[in-house]
Amino acid sequence: MKILEGKSLTDVPGFKAAGISSGIKKSEKKDLCIIYSETPCTAAATFTTNKVKAAPLLVNVKHLQSDAIHAVVVNSGNANACTGSQGLKDAETMAEVTASQLGIAPESVLVGSTGIIGVPLPMDVVTNGIKTACGQLSFDGGHDAAKAIMTTDTFPKKITVEFTIKGRTIFISGIAKGSGMIHPNMATMLSFLVTNANIEKTILSAALKNSVEDSYNMISVDGDTSTNDMVVVLANGTAENPVIDQENDDYILFKEALDYVNKQLSKMIAKDGEGATKLIEVTVLHGQTLQDAKLCAKSVTSSSLVKSAFFGSDANWGRIMCSLGYSAGNFDPEKVDIAFENSTGHIDLVKDGISVLFCEEQAKKILSEDTIKVIIDLKDGDYNATAWGCDLTYDYVKINGSYRT
Amino acid sequence: MKILEGKSLTDVPGFKAAGISSGIKKSEKKDLCIIYSETPCTAAATFTTNKVKAAPLLVNVKHLQSDAIHAVVVNSGNANACTGSQGLKDAETMAEVTASQLGIAPESVLVGSTGIIGVPLPMDVVTNGIKTACGQLSFDGGHDAAKAIMTTDTFPKKITVEFTIKGRTIFISGIAKGSGMIHPNMATMLSFLVTNANIEKTILSAALKNSVEDSYNMISVDGDTSTNDMVVVLANGTAENPVIDQENDDYILFKEALDYVNKQLSKMIAKDGEGATKLIEVTVLHGQTLQDAKLCAKSVTSSSLVKSAFFGSDANWGRIMCSLGYSAGNFDPEKVDIAFENSTGHIDLVKDGISVLFCEEQAKKILSEDTIKVIIDLKDGDYNATAWGCDLTYDYVKINGSYRT
Repeated sequence: MKILEGKSLTDVPGFKAAGISSGIKKSEKKDLCIIYSETPCTAAATFTTNKVKAAPLLVNVKHLQSDAIHAVVVNSGNANACTGSQGLKDAETMAEVTASQLGIAPESVLVGSTGIIGVPLPMDVVTNGIKTACGQLSFDGGHDAAKAIMTTDTFPKKITVEFTIKGRTIFISGIAKGSGMIHPNMATMLSFLVTNANIEKTILSAALKNSVEDSYNMISVDGDTSTNDMVVVLANGTAENPVIDQENDDYILFKEALDYVNKQLSKMIAKDGEGATKLIEVTVLHGQTLQDAKLCAKSVTSSSLVKSAFFGSDANWGRIMCSLGYSAGNFDPEKVDIAFENSTGHIDLVKDGISVLFCEEQAKKILSEDTIKVIIDLKDGDYNATAWGCDLTYDYVKINGSYRT
Repeated sequence: MKILEGKSLTDVPGFKAAGISSGIKKSEKKDLCIIYSETPCTAAATFTTNKVKAAPLLVNVKHLQSDAIHAVVVNSGNANACTGSQGLKDAETMAEVTASQLGIAPESVLVGSTGIIGVPLPMDVVTNGIKTACGQLSFDGGHDAAKAIMTTDTFPKKITVEFTIKGRTIFISGIAKGSGMIHPNMATMLSFLVTNANIEKTILSAALKNSVEDSYNMISVDGDTSTNDMVVVLANGTAENPVIDQENDDYILFKEALDYVNKQLSKMIAKDGEGATKLIEVTVLHGQTLQDAKLCAKSVTSSSLVKSAFFGSDANWGRIMCSLGYSAGNFDPEKVDIAFENSTGHIDLVKDGISVLFCEEQAKKILSEDTIKVIIDLKDGDYNATAWGCDLTYDYVKINGSYRT
């Protein structure tokens, strides 16, 4: 598998995209994105488990019954959530306008929204924006599309990989957005993947669902699970590889690449957490069950106290022990080892649940870098898990003290 | 029931207390507290559910088998948690030294600790401190005791009430500490109550357990459940009321007063949350079950996004809907009403799940006060619950970015 630097969605054969400023955002930043495949795609998606689901998600659940998805239309700056029956109608209109511009069926269009909750979409602005964006669809619009789905993100999140199945060149490319309200459960804030792989719908769904468990579902910025989370993958089959319709060797190659793309996008979201200065990667080793390892890892990345300590480059391992202890994961506190590491070195802090003498200066050096790995060995079983998060900073509070007004 | 302003633990007949600076804290602030009853007390306690439990809690579980508790010794500045077998020995020594000074049995002494996790107690300092404190026990030491259990608290938390059972005057007085690592489950950071009521042990335990559910277990500062949480009540029986040994009318009077004391102390802890500028009281009305109402209320007070919005006086009700949605509580999003109120007025924000037109200026005025009530009507059943929390501020990050070093 090769990672293709500088490429985007539209480097996958058959996919066009556009990202424009329609006027939904007051800032004149890009806020409307369309991804379009000339040929029909097999599609799979996962959505938020929040009981309050945004209108576009409800529309997508219906449209995903179709076996021929052609396009995704996404606006940023407004979440179209808690907007009642008008919101549902607006999401449907977004699909209809896109479909009519592209000469496809409304059911072949998926819809996404992200931004402020509870405010009706300005539909005249959105409709004009969709028309403009459809007119600008191109085979190099992928980078603009990545920008147009951003809200408080500080950089666009994208990745493209290439690999081979039975001599056919397969690409998977994804874009994602997410910075605050990030604690996904079954999916994350918007992520859109496209591939030219030829893959059957059920197996694509299974691959996505499984992949999401170890990527987006393992990140947290602030513990808040959004109303609008969604991950969508479109596969147009133009690689003409023998169709992947079972969990065979071809599936394994595809799944490996899909996992890589999803994990990289997840890490970008965690690193770009609102106000964050550091990416925190927590690996829990030797849990009794996979669930125990995952619960322990996520509890550490979700703790406000642990996150604040990382911001202050303070090796406060007691807070890590505390967050393990209140997680729902099983473990024996008297067996736990904890270490920090990154490019500057490795330091052991805890052995068998109690402190080892460690050099504060060396710990400070590791903690001052922008990526920190926390390795927690439960010495209790065979299961490992990794979660990603970020530090809690003044800027998180600043950004969220005045997001709406 | 009367609230006695300016009174403390030692205004309950038979209780002495002391609070001194022993040198555990570098700051020379008070850090060692003893509460002592000349006559033996019936005692009940609840402890943290964190799997990582501090050493003193393990000692107390054993000592609470005794029917004659005389004293509580508490240090602040060091949690004696994650300190292994030495920590356990140190907690036992704290009880033994106290007992030997007071001429009582070691099993009649309960122990508490709060502060930094993972650092061994400086036992020479602690031992000398206990001896000094025992020498200073007095019938007006209650205020000093309240100060000596503080860590990042900005004010001592205490309350005393008086009521009558069968012509006998009963007092309940409590002190508490807690500011960060506050998300109690079965108990909170340290809270010590004393009463002169004559009450049987099993019924006292039942009353405390039930009371804790609706008070300490309904507050959150930062979502982190401490390793050291404990609530202890000592009843010395000197009021000579007919012993309360069943859930009769006398029990109801006692329980009402106990609930009031615990709720007031809980609100003080939430209000004094690390860096907090506002007390947030969230009342959920008409849940399908009590559990649904509680889960919904706690989810709102625990959301970093909601808390940041309150800091910024931003009426961002979408985040409240979102946090309800990812709670484990059942409700119908399309039935939800949300309002804010306090002494400056009442404002409706949401009816049936969607926004109502409201005056931003009036909302801002309500949100700028230091106490804000959020009223959420699920219109879905008969159960109500109230949770307390605080806003998330720059100072929370500041305090916790450098707590240890």
